[in-house]
Amino acid sequence: MREILITENPDIDNILNYLLKNRGKMLRPKMVYLTASLQPHDPDVIRDIAIAVELIHMASLVHDDVIDYAATRRGRPSVNNRWGNQISVLTGDYLFATAFNLINQHSLPAVTDTLSHTIKIMCSGEIKQLFMLYNINISEEEYYDKTYRKTACLFAASCKIGALGSNLPEEQMTLLQQYGLCLGYAYQIIDDVLDFVSDTSTLGKPAGSDLLQGNITLPVILGLKDEESGLKLRSLLQNKELSSDKMPRILEILQKTGAINDSIKYSRMFLQLALELIDKLPPSNGVKGLKELSTYLLEEYYQKLNVLNGEDRRSTSGTSY
Amino acid sequence: MREILITENPDIDNILNYLLKNRGKMLRPKMVYLTASLQPHDPDVIRDIAIAVELIHMASLVHDDVIDYAATRRGRPSVNNRWGNQISVLTGDYLFATAFNLINQHSLPAVTDTLSHTIKIMCSGEIKQLFMLYNINISEEEYYDKTYRKTACLFAASCKIGALGSNLPEEQMTLLQQYGLCLGYAYQIIDDVLDFVSDTSTLGKPAGSDLLQGNITLPVILGLKDEESGLKLRSLLQNKELSSDKMPRILEILQKTGAINDSIKYSRMFLQLALELIDKLPPSNGVKGLKELSTYLLEEYYQKLNVLNGEDRRSTSGTSY
Repeated sequence: MREILITENPDIDNILNYLLKNRGKMLRPKMVYLTASLQPHDPDVIRDIAIAVELIHMASLVHDDVIDYAATRRGRPSVNNRWGNQISVLTGDYLFATAFNLINQHSLPAVTDTLSHTIKIMCSGEIKQLFMLYNINISEEEYYDKTYRKTACLFAASCKIGALGSNLPEEQMTLLQQYGLCLGYAYQIIDDVLDFVSDTSTLGKPAGSDLLQGNITLPVILGLKDEESGLKLRSLLQNKELSSDKMPRILEILQKTGAINDSIKYSRMFLQLALELIDKLPPSNGVKGLKELSTYLLEEYYQKLNVLNGEDRRSTSGTSY
Repeated sequence: MREILITENPDIDNILNYLLKNRGKMLRPKMVYLTASLQPHDPDVIRDIAIAVELIHMASLVHDDVIDYAATRRGRPSVNNRWGNQISVLTGDYLFATAFNLINQHSLPAVTDTLSHTIKIMCSGEIKQLFMLYNINISEEEYYDKTYRKTACLFAASCKIGALGSNLPEEQMTLLQQYGLCLGYAYQIIDDVLDFVSDTSTLGKPAGSDLLQGNITLPVILGLKDEESGLKLRSLLQNKELSSDKMPRILEILQKTGAINDSIKYSRMFLQLALELIDKLPPSNGVKGLKELSTYLLEEYYQKLNVLNGEDRRSTSGTSY
């Protein structure tokens, strides 16, 4: 990855190295490698596909941090915080272009198509979301569309391009793509829940940050539907300039109405679906790896939630996955 | 273009339509059409290549306006002015992805390679430029590198991909690419000159805007080299927080030292080179069109300069092209 990214200019390399040193879980490249492993393949091709999807993910994070005015990313100052918005916009563009340039070295038009189409979905989704900020009338369906565009579509694409790279049969590719989709939903829902129940020390931002920025997520949508407390929640959220001192009362409603727990249940349901899809594939180390990836990834979150959300432990741990 | 861009979401379409209504000279697609016209070709392929390069140009303008804090673009409020930086970043990304998605519909890996590589050059060039702002020790060589990355490389790429789309022989493609390169230099130099000699009513921004933003261009580089007035210019530019009230004195030096006139001469020299390159191709309507495009494009500017820069008319109009 370093080899592909690095230029001859020390100023640019400094930014790129900063990004490379601050990598996350590398989930998307892992999905590419695992799905591709289900069939013999050219390792160089799969490596470049895996790098390309991570570059696209990195680019979208760099641009997202500009969009969200984020000061930190993975516990360190964000690129926009350290170098400003101008550098961030250009660095993101550079990463996108590098990804397409890399994929194009191989004859893989279906991969380019999947990735470019996915970026279109992600960007138009984010634009839609910006126009829907502070809209508390957002439906569950709209939330799932938003989640698809924000997270699930790139998870699905990662599995699809791994499958494309190793020429998996169409049927298996579809299963893997759906697996990625379900995992993406499970992951994003739990991320949205964590935003409410975590504290600054765990999350690096205050509880309810999403809501404070006008991003209405599943727990709030479910809370608003509650017959008893929905109206109270609505009146708390009515004011666009929501202050963080209302957050304890909002959180209390989300807990009391079961909106938090139900959201966790939905996440587990999507994880369950993902695992069921994977089970339809012939057993192999790759399939085992994909199962482990998904349970490992989400179990970590569920456990964090159990600790943070102690009193709800019994009611959620009963859900099977 | 509208067909390719438009989504199902009215908010996004509103932004895209706004951009589509405010198109410029469409230089780059014209270059694609004209170069492609030198040989029989599939019109659908060439149309998509032409659209793709314009989408990339549009994307880079939308992002540039965020980077330069530009309030207007082509006489109307810029996207960032009207919808904010967030929407602008995402709209640019959407346009980039749409361009790659479109090209990928045809089997044209060399076109994708040229375009993705060009974007990398453009972005890394802009990052370099940001680190070189207010650096008055920039050399002529560095200025030409900056100009190559900012303008000339996409002009060259436009000619190259037109040639690729109609399968022109390698030799002709190289000539056309070099033609684009020279035209790009001629165009950018004159744009940099106009920034000094135009006024707000013509340019929509005050004279010397580039310099005020720390962008050191050819006239200043040439002025600084003047034995007599170079040091005086240097002392005027020493202070990073250059105020616009110094601009009349700076402009006076640039005029007196011949830095403005010499820059115009360099631009004309590049135009001359471009026309000589084109003359090496077998005569055709396409070749005629490319010659007309370049002279028409630059003559308009030279004439504007003659009007603005009245007293220099005799000294510059002598240069042949």
